[in-house]
Amino acid sequence: MTDDVIDGVIDGVIARWHRYLGGELPGGLDDLLADDVVFYSPVVYTPQRGKPVTKQYLEAASQTLAGGAGGTFRYTKQVLAGNTAVLEFETSLEGRYVNGVDVIRCDADGRIVEFRVMLRPLQGIQAVHEQMGRRLAAGG
Amino acid sequence: MTDDVIDGVIDGVIARWHRYLGGELPGGLDDLLADDVVFYSPVVYTPQRGKPVTKQYLEAASQTLAGGAGGTFRYTKQVLAGNTAVLEFETSLEGRYVNGVDVIRCDADGRIVEFRVMLRPLQGIQAVHEQMGRRLAAGG
Repeated sequence: MTDDVIDGVIDGVIARWHRYLGGELPGGLDDLLADDVVFYSPVVYTPQRGKPVTKQYLEAASQTLAGGAGGTFRYTKQVLAGNTAVLEFETSLEGRYVNGVDVIRCDADGRIVEFRVMLRPLQGIQAVHEQMGRRLAAGG
Repeated sequence: MTDDVIDGVIDGVIARWHRYLGGELPGGLDDLLADDVVFYSPVVYTPQRGKPVTKQYLEAASQTLAGGAGGTFRYTKQVLAGNTAVLEFETSLEGRYVNGVDVIRCDADGRIVEFRVMLRPLQGIQAVHEQMGRRLAAGG
């Protein structure tokens, strides 16, 4: 596993990410994340290292941001180059607008080694923070 | 001015953006921004429309994030594709770590039509929010 850029690897990773979100990826996140993946939260400074904790955050985040039945989550931009993808999205949570980016970096084997989330505006971040906190507390 | 993707236009825009930040772009932001550019703040929901207000925000933001003499601002990722660029950066403000992205979209003429900023973590956003507020109040 190296940081060498191999053309097209990130495209395959993002295709698999969308399949994961659609519930259609056999193996799920276990197959998509590198063992030493690092998750960078939109709220907390400290990087979350390793597959188990990253999986926990991504599962909670995708459930939170999807907004349940009738959720308005949609990706609005997809920028892929080298070993990195930036996916911009919009959703709403308890009536509050949330706009964000997933910054995803992969290795040459097509595993995600870095997953970084940023959100705007401030009220949207606070809505996500509250719901994520409840969900992680309930799940863990 | 259209949204058609013309290969390489965004590369030129980002090269000029870096020259602007270095104080080396003749014409400055006036030359770089489309008249109908929209700025999306990391803090506030309401889009800021038009060149004058976008210029005011970008000038305040670049001064705030540069952190003055001895500033630690640096770009850490650059992802360019189609008519869009995402630049990730790190800096610190009053001892608080700030990580962010500039999402920049241009038209076929090489003018910026959309500038979107997102920040993490929460403490970093709050530091930027406070300093930007003081700077914008002082400036106008």
